[in-house]
Amino acid sequence: MSANVPTDVRFSFAGLARRGGATGPHRDGWGISFYEGRGARAFHDPRPSADSEIARLLRNYEVQSKIVIAHMRRANRGRVSLENTHPFTRELWGRAWTFAHNGQLKGVKKLPLGAFHPIGGTDSEHAFCWTLERLRARFTTLPSPRALEIELAKLFGELAPLGVLNVLLSEGRCLYAYCTKPLHYIERRAPFGRAALIDEDLQVDFSQVTTPNDRVAVVASAPLTRDESWLVLPLGRLSVFADGALAPG
Amino acid sequence: MSANVPTDVRFSFAGLARRGGATGPHRDGWGISFYEGRGARAFHDPRPSADSEIARLLRNYEVQSKIVIAHMRRANRGRVSLENTHPFTRELWGRAWTFAHNGQLKGVKKLPLGAFHPIGGTDSEHAFCWTLERLRARFTTLPSPRALEIELAKLFGELAPLGVLNVLLSEGRCLYAYCTKPLHYIERRAPFGRAALIDEDLQVDFSQVTTPNDRVAVVASAPLTRDESWLVLPLGRLSVFADGALAPG
Repeated sequence: MSANVPTDVRFSFAGLARRGGATGPHRDGWGISFYEGRGARAFHDPRPSADSEIARLLRNYEVQSKIVIAHMRRANRGRVSLENTHPFTRELWGRAWTFAHNGQLKGVKKLPLGAFHPIGGTDSEHAFCWTLERLRARFTTLPSPRALEIELAKLFGELAPLGVLNVLLSEGRCLYAYCTKPLHYIERRAPFGRAALIDEDLQVDFSQVTTPNDRVAVVASAPLTRDESWLVLPLGRLSVFADGALAPG
Repeated sequence: MSANVPTDVRFSFAGLARRGGATGPHRDGWGISFYEGRGARAFHDPRPSADSEIARLLRNYEVQSKIVIAHMRRANRGRVSLENTHPFTRELWGRAWTFAHNGQLKGVKKLPLGAFHPIGGTDSEHAFCWTLERLRARFTTLPSPRALEIELAKLFGELAPLGVLNVLLSEGRCLYAYCTKPLHYIERRAPFGRAALIDEDLQVDFSQVTTPNDRVAVVASAPLTRDESWLVLPLGRLSVFADGALAPG
């Protein structure tokens, strides 16, 4: 999720959480990271989100955030454990970087690392550590979003041929998405309408919980709502969401 | 907390959490980090723990862990915000390092940094980043606990003259404590007895929730229970807890 004002994601999370073991097979742990100011607050649980006590708390606990990344895992490489549960976080240039990935990347663990090392055993965390090291080698301080975008597009372009690379990444300013299999997104802005979740019997009237200037974008593997027009992100390209909107690319 | 078997800290946490705004003045945010395998799971809340919904969840949610670090903050340097909420975490050599600090350190922000940078504005996070950078400069891979202990004692010995340095640190193997003002600790082992919290009307009979081989050590600024003999850690020295016991030093 990317928004131009701190936004509550409980509606979207209610639908997504059902996919972790109830309406979907992604039962091997889940996690969510909320940016608040320069800090990021993460919750992880190696248990399925559909019957997780922490997920239950978050469905009722309001966190206002401009960027949120959540992930429900279906394990392929790396056992089911806390350290293998996305999203992963590292600090670089005084920023909290958050990374979530779907897909397998053949041979990614042969890519050289530097200052960042995986704590767990997943391909994904190795790819994240490699990406950050390459950024660290390329820039000495936090680059502009535009310079970062160009570099990330190049780096993910190197990783993509290794397999499936559906990634969400943030440094707290923008939400960067790259996909080699479809990722869906929606941009919501005034006039706001109603929507109903696909995975749960829950509706919301966004006009009741927004102001006319609010903008919110949500990216997901599959659409979360049944009565809105979700679009597909271009494959093999980096997409950048800033302040609730997809940047023209 | 340090233990030789994965242990539930809900009893201790119930007492500690009361000090964040109810029985104590540390109302400027709180956090807790649980090691599970090589992963560490952290919960942070910039609100007082005594009336935090996340703290309420954790009082009822069983996490089994061999090392836990928790912190209730009373802000002096750095505003009340998520990014200033202890404990802080960084990855080094594929390990999650966790750091919590009480005290002020005058001039610490003049100490040079390297690969690690504070996300927030506290003295404490700067001291943590400096400590990790010095470790990174000294060792190329994770050193033995004994080599690490010697280096940490040296580094904290350099920081201590700057002010008050009551620190808890872990890399997931041991719990390292350094204090320039009293820190209290207790080691529990068979035969286990009963204890009652000081801050809350709650008792536990440890013999009902342990096996004869269990060992658990708890370190806190002030004793958490009223009917056990808490001891004081030596000032100006590094103390190491491993598998629920204070290592002979």
